[in-house]
Amino acid sequence: MELVKCVPNFSEGRNEADVEAIVDAARAHDVSVLDVSPDADHNRTDVTLVGEPEPVSAAAMDLAVEAVERIDMREHSGEHPRMGAIDVVPFVPLLDTSMETCIELAEAFAADFAERTGVPTYLYEEAARRPDRENLAAVRKGEYEGLRDAIGTDPDREPDFGPNHIHETGGATAVGARFFLVAFNVNLDTEDREVASRIAEAVRHSSGGYRHVKAMGFEIEDRGIVQVSMNMTDYRATPLFRVFETIRDEAAREGVGVVGSELVGLIPMEPILDAAAHYLRLEDFGGEQVLERQLVEELV
Amino acid sequence: MELVKCVPNFSEGRNEADVEAIVDAARAHDVSVLDVSPDADHNRTDVTLVGEPEPVSAAAMDLAVEAVERIDMREHSGEHPRMGAIDVVPFVPLLDTSMETCIELAEAFAADFAERTGVPTYLYEEAARRPDRENLAAVRKGEYEGLRDAIGTDPDREPDFGPNHIHETGGATAVGARFFLVAFNVNLDTEDREVASRIAEAVRHSSGGYRHVKAMGFEIEDRGIVQVSMNMTDYRATPLFRVFETIRDEAAREGVGVVGSELVGLIPMEPILDAAAHYLRLEDFGGEQVLERQLVEELV
Repeated sequence: MELVKCVPNFSEGRNEADVEAIVDAARAHDVSVLDVSPDADHNRTDVTLVGEPEPVSAAAMDLAVEAVERIDMREHSGEHPRMGAIDVVPFVPLLDTSMETCIELAEAFAADFAERTGVPTYLYEEAARRPDRENLAAVRKGEYEGLRDAIGTDPDREPDFGPNHIHETGGATAVGARFFLVAFNVNLDTEDREVASRIAEAVRHSSGGYRHVKAMGFEIEDRGIVQVSMNMTDYRATPLFRVFETIRDEAAREGVGVVGSELVGLIPMEPILDAAAHYLRLEDFGGEQVLERQLVEELV
Repeated sequence: MELVKCVPNFSEGRNEADVEAIVDAARAHDVSVLDVSPDADHNRTDVTLVGEPEPVSAAAMDLAVEAVERIDMREHSGEHPRMGAIDVVPFVPLLDTSMETCIELAEAFAADFAERTGVPTYLYEEAARRPDRENLAAVRKGEYEGLRDAIGTDPDREPDFGPNHIHETGGATAVGARFFLVAFNVNLDTEDREVASRIAEAVRHSSGGYRHVKAMGFEIEDRGIVQVSMNMTDYRATPLFRVFETIRDEAAREGVGVVGSELVGLIPMEPILDAAAHYLRLEDFGGEQVLERQLVEELV
């Protein structure tokens, strides 16, 4: 069975009635609405939808259309960067679902959404058709106000779908496919932040480390220790256990021990099972043996 | 949320219409029927029900009553030991559900079932009220035919619920609570079966090892290696990773490496997460952070 997550972000986080009406448009479908997080300062709401690809896409579409109908970007303000009423629509593969499935979902969603609403729509991250759109920040550069002026004149800002001008009230939308982002921190038994920073440098992509690791060194003052704080952006290609072992080795070289680690927030089963399979040297272990996963497949 | 598994075993594995009718009695409830395994040689069917305690218990009850109505133990034959039309009804805790919950379920089920059907009913394993009923084999000693003669005369065979005589067609039933049994095998890089046998002896309860491990040493001839084959009867109290590390240490002492391990069949997420948490030294990691588990809680 294929299972995907979609996290549409829309530009309303203050008017409860509007937030509810927009989310209700998704709830009408056969999907699980796992989380709804309105933020008044950001004036933005993230919604987590999980289910099979088709109903998730249909739920996200109704939510997106409702957001375009209710939100006027000319009057929107908030701390979070944004360019549209429905700002971003990322599709994330779960279970054994492939990234290809999510790229296809994103493409079909973007074409259909632009057609139905007249909102210019960009494909980003794994779904990007141009390298300069892999980074969402580049797609959203200048936000609503900046894009309104640039689109139609700057050829680099021409959308992948929809008209080559801003939608006055709906702005513009980015639709993408990306991996599940896992926040993974490793705590080290020293007060010396430099140790954490050196190790972060050793494991992160930008300075020669693993391809799908972003990392920083921090102090945790109340515990008198330091932390290598990471975002794992593709746990299939760069597994947690491998990075953990590298950190342990580098820390040992500094004469420092690993006191523990943390997984932050919601996390799929897969990278945790992968770690168990690695350390227990499991042969032919498949996630489909896991009872909770069978339940999900049975119930979704 | 509380989640339990129940695996009623009934004494019909040949007549498809009867098997279907008995299982359908459970399907009418709001539970997941994960598996139905009729076995013609055993003339017996195992059914795996998963869901919240009340609907699972109600589904198992309707299944049990249907089995008593359809099966005549006077005419039953099969290779598997059995004493009743509905032979055993074990309740197994899942997620964070406690064993206490399953013991209470078993007690209530046994009382209600005996009342409704007049079938003498015994509590076994964790639900046993006498030490000599912890072992199912002792409860079922002599099977239907032997128990028919012994019950009413031997005070040790008096049932926990129901009349002190056999139910002519329905026989007798054992209702219990037990942990999820995990089959876990560790493969060793030697052809010497004695090594596997010595290590099995080191880790198993019966010869001084871990409290909840049953173990044997085997040869795997086609691979030219040996295996420590285990049943982990309570993975909470005796975790897989601890036994694995002991086996690795004992094997090293013999100059032998661990080539791999195997988890056989359906397995709950919990012991695998526990292994990952151990090796990655996760602090405060809770299964509730796992997306698939949240889906199960959302969907059940």
